[in-house]
Amino acid sequence: MQGYHTTERADMPVKPFSTLFEFTEIIEAFPKSNAQAQADASVRNSVLTKPPGALGRLEDIAIWYAGWRGEEAPSIQNPQVIVFAGNHGVTKQGVSAFPAEVTAQMVYNFQAGGAAINQLSKAFGATLNVHALELENPTADFTVTAAMTEAEVVTSLLSGWNSVDPLADLMVTGEMGIGNTTSAAAIASALYGGLGVDWVGRGTGVDDDGLGRKAQVVDLGVAKHSVEGATPLETLRRLGGRELAAIVGAIARARVESIPVILDGFICTAAAAVLEATEAGALDHCIAGHVSAEQAHAKLLENLNKEPILSLGLRLGEGSGAALAIGVLKGALACHSGMATFAEAGVSEG
Amino acid sequence: MQGYHTTERADMPVKPFSTLFEFTEIIEAFPKSNAQAQADASVRNSVLTKPPGALGRLEDIAIWYAGWRGEEAPSIQNPQVIVFAGNHGVTKQGVSAFPAEVTAQMVYNFQAGGAAINQLSKAFGATLNVHALELENPTADFTVTAAMTEAEVVTSLLSGWNSVDPLADLMVTGEMGIGNTTSAAAIASALYGGLGVDWVGRGTGVDDDGLGRKAQVVDLGVAKHSVEGATPLETLRRLGGRELAAIVGAIARARVESIPVILDGFICTAAAAVLEATEAGALDHCIAGHVSAEQAHAKLLENLNKEPILSLGLRLGEGSGAALAIGVLKGALACHSGMATFAEAGVSEG
Repeated sequence: MQGYHTTERADMPVKPFSTLFEFTEIIEAFPKSNAQAQADASVRNSVLTKPPGALGRLEDIAIWYAGWRGEEAPSIQNPQVIVFAGNHGVTKQGVSAFPAEVTAQMVYNFQAGGAAINQLSKAFGATLNVHALELENPTADFTVTAAMTEAEVVTSLLSGWNSVDPLADLMVTGEMGIGNTTSAAAIASALYGGLGVDWVGRGTGVDDDGLGRKAQVVDLGVAKHSVEGATPLETLRRLGGRELAAIVGAIARARVESIPVILDGFICTAAAAVLEATEAGALDHCIAGHVSAEQAHAKLLENLNKEPILSLGLRLGEGSGAALAIGVLKGALACHSGMATFAEAGVSEG
Repeated sequence: MQGYHTTERADMPVKPFSTLFEFTEIIEAFPKSNAQAQADASVRNSVLTKPPGALGRLEDIAIWYAGWRGEEAPSIQNPQVIVFAGNHGVTKQGVSAFPAEVTAQMVYNFQAGGAAINQLSKAFGATLNVHALELENPTADFTVTAAMTEAEVVTSLLSGWNSVDPLADLMVTGEMGIGNTTSAAAIASALYGGLGVDWVGRGTGVDDDGLGRKAQVVDLGVAKHSVEGATPLETLRRLGGRELAAIVGAIARARVESIPVILDGFICTAAAAVLEATEAGALDHCIAGHVSAEQAHAKLLENLNKEPILSLGLRLGEGSGAALAIGVLKGALACHSGMATFAEAGVSEG
């Protein structure tokens, strides 16, 4: 199956959708996992030189990955980490411990190689791409008006869509955007119900007053934008941000390219949830890299029925927790595809 | 501090101890972590370009590692995985789902590169060494007599001790030995109390009858060898196995060489517990790589006050869970030592 991705997808247009409606049609037509490859991988797993089930979750991960790649025994050679950065009008409401300038400053830090995600991408052999999305042009403050116009959200979705390398065999999306935990909490509240207080956390480290303001801002925004029959993508437009929309676009593109995705923390997962809310199963090619210390992330993962791989108290964003989980996936696939079978090794079965 | 390990330790004798008493003296004189390096690392951590604490447990791991390496900003370049294999007389009691021949067969598999630990060592850039310890000469059945003579246990401790590469900067010990979860459970029961049923698990996959036999065998062994005032090392001699003793020797040597250690699963941890029971703090240079699916491993880690890094349901041994955790440690140190500070990156602090 090597080569599948380039040959079939070289003709992908740069602008495969122009409206949210057209993007929805793509989501509704998402390809499925390759059932034969998954079955073959499961058989292979059962004859490897280990007691049945002894590699625990690594076995499930390998079989899942094999299905999405359409190969019985694939390996991970070319992971891509993509970090999207955006600015948020809602920061005017005092929802972050850091000033909005930090978004651009951190983009420079990414470009200079100085951030956590640079080190983690290098450590796990991933290509890192950084996309700053009109940082000089923050989204509108959603307590006043919709964060984005349809043209803006579609442009951001396309930025994400076009950032995916069709030759990648694993994808991580990360984000940087002062104020974006507030935006993510508003999306979660709109999609799943509950008040702001149920979905906000300390983000980069707001104090109790800041946390209270975040909850209020979420409640205001959700009340303002709770439109009868609004689609999840319309919620993304009204309450989201450019980097969140780009994550949605990138995860959708990865699905079309059969590239498995590791979800990162609260913001990334809230963005991804828009896809699942649009079409059940739209995140079946995604695995949760970790559960973060941002308090509502665990609840968000429960709503998506995703069991996190790691639980190490990270709450940095940038794709850092998911990048760390690349190591676990590489290990899982190295075992699955590299181990000898009982017959090959001449080992007695139990 | 680069070079510390070679220059100071090149004169390490091949036989630094000849009796359990002499080995105990080494344990009692274990060096401590470098407090200055640890403090410097903590200061460095506080000025890296991230919100305070946002890398969660990765920050604690990096600071701990820096202390043991005696460097403010070390990196992990040369991890060593050492797998010890031994055979157990107690297998005569029907305590395993696999025949004893599998120990030697799996050693061949390790040597041929076909086992899980081969793939994981390669995936995380670790050197893998395998030591088969007199497989043709199983330890005695501890329900009848002590598993090893003092000469045998000292020889095994020395095998472990001498297997450590003083130039390694991280060590994982793994094991292979049909019957060794029974031996490990007996050690745990002798050190911490509780009956066999509290400490046995399904190992490679015994059925309910086998599990009952394991519990009985543990109770018989512990009753027979519960000698008034017996030291933990004497417990190791009476109930342990060659590969467990080698793990004890290797972890001790790593301490003397300032090499941090990642503990693997139940058997490795039970062996390591002998050191902590001998001298409190003897495992301070060790971190728990994972909690395995072998049911008593979590309890063992609680007794040692070690929080596992991973929890992925592995129960393979070979060092596999610990090897997987090498990736997390590499990621932690890559961030700690590679990230820019706020001042270097020109990023505003919160």
